[in-house]
Amino acid sequence: MKKAFLLSSAILLAISSVFGQDNSKADEALTNKIIAIERAALEEWNKGNPDAYLIIYATDYTYFDPYLEKRVDGFDAIKKLYDGIKGQVSVDHYEMIDPMVQILAKDVAVLTFNLYSYSGNEVYKWNCTEVFNLQPDKAWKIIHTHWSYIRPIGQ
Amino acid sequence: MKKAFLLSSAILLAISSVFGQDNSKADEALTNKIIAIERAALEEWNKGNPDAYLIIYATDYTYFDPYLEKRVDGFDAIKKLYDGIKGQVSVDHYEMIDPMVQILAKDVAVLTFNLYSYSGNEVYKWNCTEVFNLQPDKAWKIIHTHWSYIRPIGQ
Repeated sequence: MKKAFLLSSAILLAISSVFGQDNSKADEALTNKIIAIERAALEEWNKGNPDAYLIIYATDYTYFDPYLEKRVDGFDAIKKLYDGIKGQVSVDHYEMIDPMVQILAKDVAVLTFNLYSYSGNEVYKWNCTEVFNLQPDKAWKIIHTHWSYIRPIGQ
Repeated sequence: MKKAFLLSSAILLAISSVFGQDNSKADEALTNKIIAIERAALEEWNKGNPDAYLIIYATDYTYFDPYLEKRVDGFDAIKKLYDGIKGQVSVDHYEMIDPMVQILAKDVAVLTFNLYSYSGNEVYKWNCTEVFNLQPDKAWKIIHTHWSYIRPIGQ
Protein backbone atom coordinates (compact mmCIF):
# COMPACT_ATOMS: atom_id res chain seq x y z
CA MET A 1 0.00 0.00 0.00
CA LYS A 2 2.79 2.37 1.01
CA LYS A 3 4.76 1.46 -2.11
CA ALA A 4 1.73 2.03 -4.28
CA PHE A 5 1.24 5.45 -2.62
CA LEU A 6 4.88 6.39 -3.15
CA LEU A 7 4.72 5.23 -6.75
CA SER A 8 1.55 7.23 -7.48
CA SER A 9 3.08 10.29 -5.75
CA ALA A 10 6.14 9.96 -7.95
CA ILE A 11 3.96 9.71 -11.04
CA LEU A 12 1.94 12.77 -9.97
CA LEU A 13 5.16 14.70 -9.35
CA ALA A 14 6.47 13.73 -12.80
CA ILE A 15 3.18 14.74 -14.41
CA SER A 16 3.06 18.11 -12.62
CA SER A 17 6.68 18.75 -13.54
CA VAL A 18 5.94 18.07 -17.21
CA PHE A 19 2.82 20.27 -17.02
CA GLY A 20 4.88 22.97 -15.31
CA GLN A 21 7.27 23.04 -18.24
CA ASP A 22 4.38 22.98 -20.66
CA ASN A 23 2.76 25.89 -18.83
CA SER A 24 5.85 28.03 -19.02
CA LYS A 25 6.29 27.21 -22.73
CA ALA A 26 2.58 27.86 -23.29
CA ASP A 27 2.88 31.21 -21.49
CA GLU A 28 5.85 32.20 -23.67
CA ALA A 29 3.96 31.18 -26.81
CA LEU A 30 0.89 33.15 -25.70
CA THR A 31 3.02 36.20 -24.85
CA ASN A 32 4.52 36.16 -28.35
CA LYS A 33 1.10 35.61 -29.93
CA ILE A 34 -0.52 38.55 -28.07
CA ILE A 35 2.36 40.90 -28.99
CA ALA A 36 2.16 39.75 -32.62
CA ILE A 37 -1.62 40.42 -32.74
CA GLU A 38 -1.04 43.94 -31.36
CA ARG A 39 1.84 44.70 -33.75
CA ALA A 40 -0.16 43.54 -36.78
CA ALA A 41 -3.09 45.83 -35.90
CA LEU A 42 -0.78 48.74 -34.99
CA GLU A 43 1.08 48.52 -38.30
CA GLU A 44 -2.21 48.83 -40.19
CA TRP A 45 -3.30 51.70 -37.89
CA ASN A 46 -0.03 53.48 -38.72
CA LYS A 47 -1.04 53.40 -42.40
CA GLY A 48 -4.39 55.03 -41.63
CA ASN A 49 -6.38 51.78 -41.47
CA PRO A 50 -8.19 51.38 -38.12
CA ASP A 51 -10.16 48.33 -39.31
CA ALA A 52 -7.35 45.98 -38.25
CA TYR A 53 -8.03 47.00 -34.63
CA LEU A 54 -11.81 46.72 -35.04
CA ILE A 55 -11.38 43.07 -36.10
CA ILE A 56 -9.75 42.26 -32.75
CA TYR A 57 -12.15 44.25 -30.51
CA ALA A 58 -14.80 42.28 -28.60
CA THR A 59 -18.49 43.26 -28.55
CA ASP A 60 -18.36 44.58 -24.97
CA TYR A 61 -15.27 46.71 -25.66
CA THR A 62 -14.29 49.82 -23.68
CA TYR A 63 -11.72 52.51 -24.56
CA PHE A 64 -9.88 55.52 -23.10
CA ASP A 65 -7.64 57.94 -25.01
CA PRO A 66 -6.33 61.45 -24.24
CA TYR A 67 -8.59 63.17 -26.81
CA LEU A 68 -11.91 62.13 -25.26
CA GLU A 69 -13.90 63.48 -22.29
CA LYS A 70 -15.48 60.08 -21.57
CA ARG A 71 -14.83 56.36 -21.97
CA VAL A 72 -16.06 54.82 -25.24
CA ASP A 73 -18.43 51.94 -24.42
CA GLY A 74 -19.20 49.12 -26.85
CA PHE A 75 -18.02 47.98 -30.28
CA ASP A 76 -20.50 50.14 -32.23
CA ALA A 77 -19.27 53.31 -30.49
CA ILE A 78 -15.58 52.62 -31.18
CA LYS A 79 -16.38 51.65 -34.80
CA LYS A 80 -18.11 55.02 -35.29
CA LEU A 81 -15.09 56.83 -33.82
CA TYR A 82 -12.58 54.89 -35.95
CA ASP A 83 -14.67 55.21 -39.13
CA GLY A 84 -14.37 58.99 -38.66
CA ILE A 85 -10.55 58.97 -38.64
CA LYS A 86 -9.96 56.47 -41.45
CA GLY A 87 -7.00 57.55 -43.58
CA GLN A 88 -5.93 60.32 -41.17
CA VAL A 89 -3.16 58.58 -39.21
CA SER A 90 0.26 58.38 -40.82
CA VAL A 91 3.13 57.02 -38.76
CA ASP A 92 6.48 56.53 -40.51
CA HIS A 93 7.89 54.08 -37.99
CA TYR A 94 7.38 53.02 -34.40
CA GLU A 95 9.10 51.46 -31.44
CA MET A 96 7.18 49.12 -29.11
CA ILE A 97 9.11 49.43 -25.85
CA ASP A 98 9.20 46.81 -23.04
CA PRO A 99 6.02 44.92 -23.97
CA MET A 100 4.84 42.75 -21.07
CA VAL A 101 1.99 40.23 -21.03
CA GLN A 102 0.40 39.33 -17.69
CA ILE A 103 -1.50 36.05 -18.18
CA LEU A 104 -4.47 35.46 -15.89
CA ALA A 105 -6.54 32.30 -15.68
CA LYS A 106 -5.41 31.14 -19.15
CA ASP A 107 -8.08 33.22 -20.91
CA VAL A 108 -7.10 36.76 -19.98
CA ALA A 109 -3.85 38.45 -21.06
CA VAL A 110 -2.99 42.03 -20.11
CA LEU A 111 -0.52 43.60 -22.58
CA THR A 112 1.27 46.80 -21.56
CA PHE A 113 3.96 48.71 -23.42
CA ASN A 114 5.33 52.13 -24.28
CA LEU A 115 5.05 53.25 -27.87
CA TYR A 116 7.09 55.85 -29.71
CA SER A 117 5.34 56.81 -32.97
CA TYR A 118 7.42 58.85 -35.43
CA SER A 119 5.54 61.02 -37.91
CA GLY A 120 7.61 63.54 -39.93
CA ASN A 121 9.63 65.49 -37.35
CA GLU A 122 7.27 64.63 -34.50
CA VAL A 123 7.46 61.80 -32.00
CA TYR A 124 4.41 60.81 -29.96
CA LYS A 125 5.15 58.90 -26.75
CA TRP A 126 2.44 56.65 -25.38
CA ASN A 127 1.55 54.38 -22.48
CA CYS A 128 -0.70 51.55 -23.64
CA THR A 129 -2.82 48.93 -21.85
CA GLU A 130 -4.70 46.25 -23.82
CA VAL A 131 -6.80 43.63 -22.00
CA PHE A 132 -7.21 40.53 -24.17
CA ASN A 133 -9.87 37.86 -23.49
CA LEU A 134 -10.10 34.45 -25.16
CA GLN A 135 -13.48 34.30 -26.90
CA PRO A 136 -15.75 31.22 -27.17
CA ASP A 137 -14.52 30.74 -30.79
CA LYS A 138 -10.91 30.64 -29.41
CA ALA A 139 -9.93 33.99 -30.93
CA TRP A 140 -8.10 36.44 -28.64
CA LYS A 141 -9.94 39.76 -28.65
CA ILE A 142 -9.42 43.03 -26.79
CA ILE A 143 -12.10 44.01 -24.25
CA HIS A 144 -10.44 47.20 -22.99
CA THR A 145 -7.83 49.69 -24.26
CA HIS A 146 -6.24 52.63 -22.44
CA TRP A 147 -3.96 54.97 -24.43
CA SER A 148 -2.31 57.93 -22.70
CA TYR A 149 0.64 60.24 -23.29
CA ILE A 150 3.85 59.74 -21.34
CA ARG A 151 4.33 62.82 -19.12
CA PRO A 152 1.87 65.09 -20.96
CA ILE A 153 2.52 68.83 -20.61
CA GLY A 154 -0.09 70.81 -18.71
CA GLN A 155 -2.67 69.93 -16.02
CA MET B 1 -36.00 6.12 -22.65
CA LYS B 2 -37.37 9.11 -24.53
CA LYS B 3 -39.33 10.21 -21.45
CA ALA B 4 -36.24 9.91 -19.29
CA PHE B 5 -34.32 12.00 -21.84
CA LEU B 6 -37.01 14.70 -21.91
CA LEU B 7 -37.17 14.73 -18.12
CA SER B 8 -33.41 15.08 -17.75
CA SER B 9 -33.41 17.83 -20.42
CA ALA B 10 -36.10 19.69 -18.48
CA ILE B 11 -34.09 19.35 -15.27
CA LEU B 12 -30.93 20.59 -17.00
CA LEU B 13 -32.83 23.56 -18.41
CA ALA B 14 -34.22 24.39 -14.96
CA ILE B 15 -30.75 24.11 -13.41
CA SER B 16 -29.13 26.32 -16.07
CA SER B 17 -31.90 28.89 -15.66
CA VAL B 18 -31.35 29.02 -11.89
CA PHE B 19 -27.57 29.28 -12.42
CA GLY B 20 -28.18 32.04 -14.99
CA GLN B 21 -30.00 34.07 -12.39
CA ASP B 22 -27.32 33.30 -9.82
CA ASN B 23 -24.63 34.40 -12.28
CA SER B 24 -26.27 37.73 -12.91
CA LYS B 25 -26.76 38.31 -9.17
CA ALA B 26 -23.18 37.19 -8.54
CA ASP B 27 -21.92 39.59 -11.23
CA GLU B 28 -23.84 42.47 -9.65
CA ALA B 29 -22.46 41.59 -6.21
CA LEU B 30 -18.90 41.36 -7.59
CA THR B 31 -19.29 44.69 -9.43
CA ASN B 32 -20.35 46.37 -6.18
CA LYS B 33 -17.54 44.67 -4.26
CA ILE B 34 -14.83 45.76 -6.74
CA ILE B 35 -16.07 49.38 -6.73
CA ALA B 36 -16.20 49.35 -2.91
CA ILE B 37 -12.60 48.05 -2.72
CA GLU B 38 -11.44 50.85 -5.05
CA ARG B 39 -13.38 53.57 -3.20
CA ALA B 40 -12.01 52.48 0.17
CA ALA B 41 -8.39 52.64 -1.09
CA LEU B 42 -9.01 55.92 -2.95
CA GLU B 43 -10.47 57.60 0.13
CA GLU B 44 -7.32 56.74 2.11
CA TRP B 45 -5.14 57.91 -0.82
CA ASN B 46 -6.99 61.23 -0.78
CA LYS B 47 -5.89 61.70 2.86
CA GLY B 48 -2.24 61.15 1.91
CA ASN B 49 -2.16 57.44 2.81
CA PRO B 50 -1.05 55.28 -0.15
CA ASP B 51 -0.78 52.12 2.01
CA ALA B 52 -4.46 51.30 1.44
CA TYR B 53 -3.64 50.78 -2.25
CA LEU B 54 -0.49 48.79 -1.49
CA ILE B 55 -2.60 46.31 0.51
CA ILE B 56 -4.67 45.51 -2.59
CA TYR B 57 -1.77 45.33 -5.11
CA ALA B 58 -0.61 41.84 -6.19
CA THR B 59 3.06 40.80 -6.21
CA ASP B 60 3.33 40.95 -10.02
CA TYR B 61 1.78 44.43 -10.18
CA THR B 62 2.34 46.92 -13.04
CA TYR B 63 1.51 50.65 -13.15
CA PHE B 64 1.31 53.62 -15.53
CA ASP B 65 0.72 57.24 -14.54
CA PRO B 66 1.29 60.57 -16.38
CA TYR B 67 4.28 61.58 -14.23
CA LEU B 68 6.51 58.65 -15.15
CA GLU B 69 8.68 57.94 -18.21
CA LYS B 70 8.31 54.15 -17.82
CA ARG B 71 5.92 51.53 -16.47
CA VAL B 72 6.47 50.57 -12.81
CA ASP B 73 7.00 46.81 -12.61
CA GLY B 74 6.44 44.79 -9.44
CA PHE B 75 5.14 45.40 -5.92
CA ASP B 76 8.51 46.48 -4.47
CA ALA B 77 8.89 49.22 -7.11
CA ILE B 78 5.41 50.67 -6.54
CA LYS B 79 5.90 50.50 -2.76
CA LYS B 80 9.10 52.54 -3.10
CA LEU B 81 7.29 55.12 -5.23
CA TYR B 82 4.31 55.37 -2.86
CA ASP B 83 6.53 55.49 0.26
CA GLY B 84 8.14 58.60 -1.27
CA ILE B 85 4.82 60.49 -1.57
CA LYS B 86 3.28 59.51 1.77
CA GLY B 87 1.41 62.47 3.28
CA GLN B 88 1.70 64.58 0.10
CA VAL B 89 -1.71 64.00 -1.49
CA SER B 90 -4.65 65.99 -0.14
CA VAL B 91 -7.98 65.72 -1.96
CA ASP B 92 -10.98 67.49 -0.39
CA HIS B 93 -13.61 65.49 -2.22
CA TYR B 94 -13.97 63.34 -5.32
CA GLU B 95 -16.47 62.08 -7.85
CA MET B 96 -16.14 58.56 -9.31
CA ILE B 97 -17.91 58.85 -12.66
CA ASP B 98 -19.52 55.95 -14.60
CA PRO B 99 -17.64 53.09 -12.94
CA MET B 100 -17.92 49.91 -15.02
CA VAL B 101 -16.70 46.42 -14.13
CA GLN B 102 -16.03 43.94 -16.96
CA ILE B 103 -15.99 40.45 -15.41
CA LEU B 104 -13.89 37.84 -17.22
CA ALA B 105 -13.70 34.15 -16.37
CA LYS B 106 -14.96 34.73 -12.80
CA ASP B 107 -11.52 35.61 -11.49
CA VAL B 108 -10.66 38.75 -13.47
CA ALA B 109 -12.54 42.05 -13.13
CA VAL B 110 -11.57 45.15 -15.12
CA LEU B 111 -12.74 48.35 -13.39
CA THR B 112 -12.77 51.59 -15.41
CA PHE B 113 -14.01 55.02 -14.37
CA ASN B 114 -13.42 58.76 -14.62
CA LEU B 115 -12.34 60.53 -11.46
CA TYR B 116 -12.66 64.21 -10.58
CA SER B 117 -10.42 65.03 -7.60
CA TYR B 118 -11.01 68.44 -5.98
CA SER B 119 -8.12 69.98 -4.06
CA GLY B 120 -8.51 73.63 -3.00
CA ASN B 121 -9.48 75.53 -6.17
CA GLU B 122 -8.08 72.84 -8.47
CA VAL B 123 -9.85 69.91 -10.10
CA TYR B 124 -7.87 67.02 -11.54
CA LYS B 125 -9.70 64.91 -14.12
CA TRP B 126 -8.61 61.33 -14.61
CA ASN B 127 -9.17 58.21 -16.68
CA CYS B 128 -8.55 55.08 -14.61
CA THR B 129 -8.17 51.38 -15.42
CA GLU B 130 -7.72 48.81 -12.63
CA VAL B 131 -7.34 45.09 -13.48
CA PHE B 132 -8.36 42.94 -10.50
CA ASN B 133 -7.45 39.26 -10.20
CA LEU B 134 -8.82 36.80 -7.64
CA GLN B 135 -5.85 35.49 -5.65
CA PRO B 136 -5.40 31.91 -4.36
CA ASP B 137 -6.43 33.15 -0.86
CA LYS B 138 -9.71 34.46 -2.42
CA ALA B 139 -8.75 38.14 -1.98
CA TRP B 140 -9.30 40.42 -5.00
CA LYS B 141 -6.06 42.22 -5.80
CA ILE B 142 -5.01 44.64 -8.52
CA ILE B 143 -2.41 43.40 -11.02
CA HIS B 144 -2.36 46.49 -13.26
CA THR B 145 -3.27 50.19 -12.94
CA HIS B 146 -3.31 52.87 -15.63
CA TRP B 147 -3.98 56.49 -14.55
CA SER B 148 -4.05 59.25 -17.17
CA TYR B 149 -5.41 62.79 -17.47
CA ILE B 150 -8.58 63.44 -19.45
CA ARG B 151 -7.64 65.58 -22.47
CA PRO B 152 -4.26 66.76 -21.17
CA ILE B 153 -2.98 70.05 -22.60
CA GLY B 154 0.11 69.86 -24.78
CA GLN B 155 1.67 67.11 -26.94
